[in-house]
Amino acid sequence: MEREEGKVMDVSLKELSRKLEEFAKERDWEPYHSPRNLLLAMVGEVGELSEIFMWRGEVARGLPNWKESDKEHLGEELSDVLLYLIRLSDICGIDLADAAIKKIGKNAIKYPPKAP
Amino acid sequence: MEREEGKVMDVSLKELSRKLEEFAKERDWEPYHSPRNLLLAMVGEVGELSEIFMWRGEVARGLPNWKESDKEHLGEELSDVLLYLIRLSDICGIDLADAAIKKIGKNAIKYPPKAP
Amino acid sequence: MEREEGKVMDVSLKELSRKLEEFAKERDWEPYHSPRNLLLAMVGEVGELSEIFMWRGEVARGLPNWKESDKEHLGEELSDVLLYLIRLSDICGIDLADAAIKKIGKNAIKYPPKAP
Amino acid sequence: MEREEGKVMDVSLKELSRKLEEFAKERDWEPYHSPRNLLLAMVGEVGELSEIFMWRGEVARGLPNWKESDKEHLGEELSDVLLYLIRLSDICGIDLADAAIKKIGKNAIKYPPKAP
Repeated sequence: MEREEGKVMDVSLKELSRKLEEFAKERDWEPYHSPRNLLLAMVGEVGELSEIFMWRGEVARGLPNWKESDKEHLGEELSDVLLYLIRLSDICGIDLADAAIKKIGKNAIKYPPKAP
Repeated sequence: MEREEGKVMDVSLKELSRKLEEFAKERDWEPYHSPRNLLLAMVGEVGELSEIFMWRGEVARGLPNWKESDKEHLGEELSDVLLYLIRLSDICGIDLADAAIKKIGKNAIKYPPKAP
Repeated sequence: MEREEGKVMDVSLKELSRKLEEFAKERDWEPYHSPRNLLLAMVGEVGELSEIFMWRGEVARGLPNWKESDKEHLGEELSDVLLYLIRLSDICGIDLADAAIKKIGKNAIKYPPKAP
Repeated sequence: MEREEGKVMDVSLKELSRKLEEFAKERDWEPYHSPRNLLLAMVGEVGELSEIFMWRGEVARGLPNWKESDKEHLGEELSDVLLYLIRLSDICGIDLADAAIKKIGKNAIKYPPKAP
């Protein structure tokens, strides 16, 4: 997960999961990380994400004309939702990587691609 | 992203992102994938996730006593939130992997680990 | 709260509150109506409300061109959010009518009307 | 809607609706009050409401042991959800009072009271 100049950054769900577990342990946050506490924390972050979009009317793809600081704020709120979602999955004992791959497969069957 | 017997599954945010882009293209869904449409779709999935937890009172870590089918349903709803979150980030032009790594770093400064 | 032909219908928060309390009692639902259970039920309804709006792009005031059945569905989802919100307030011992009136007053001070 | 010492306060949905319409007009907020803008604003308030409950574990009815300032904060967030919900209904042309009464009637048929 090191950031290097000029390299495309990527990270796996399991790497994020490990990082978040370590983070919680180092801060004695584990007693707070019950499933419903984490779910409500995630709902809180979804609210903050919605607030970024609330008074703008429809927003174009790629966010043209958004200030760099607004995009950075958006990246943080998207991340907050992601991090609580991963932590919630872990605390529930759900393997999110496995579940996500399975769900894409299930969706592919439910919604077959249109004929060429 | 192949699933192999006996191997721990993992997947990166960028792999999921590519998969979802391809998925939308093959089904002509791209015109529907505007930022606010995707945000509302994600809020819809957060609602379905909440419904799994709504009448249970507090839930223990690891979900002891949950039926296997309930855990599978939970995995699907967690995945739905994840997939729309990744797609929303992409459509906004936000690099979620990069943003998440940065956010963990920022949180580490904001909440320093307790002294040993 | 009787509905009469040709009359404008209205209802107060306290009337709805009494109705919902009676409803829960008659069905032995009270043990389920804890604050966080009701909050998550409300989040579930907010999700269903969002699903009505998710793939439509921007929607005009008054919902021109919506089918009557879609408007009726919308009215039901808006009501579901309202009813859980009122019930949540009651179970928390919060007087929502009083709180709402106070909040409008507070907002009026925070956001003074523009000069004529 | 005057508050008088020693009187139980109540308010109807239509009174709140009128108050909010006047409030928006006096501040030139009407251009911002599109259906999806108001929906996202409401989701934002649901997030703030969730944040009040997120790290507390299960919460008892009546909120014993909560500080008066926490209860007041809760009343404000419950009100914010209510006020945006009413405004959203109005802007969509949905009569929320009528819809809520109908929905209670529909629920009463769907979930008949248990036999005595």
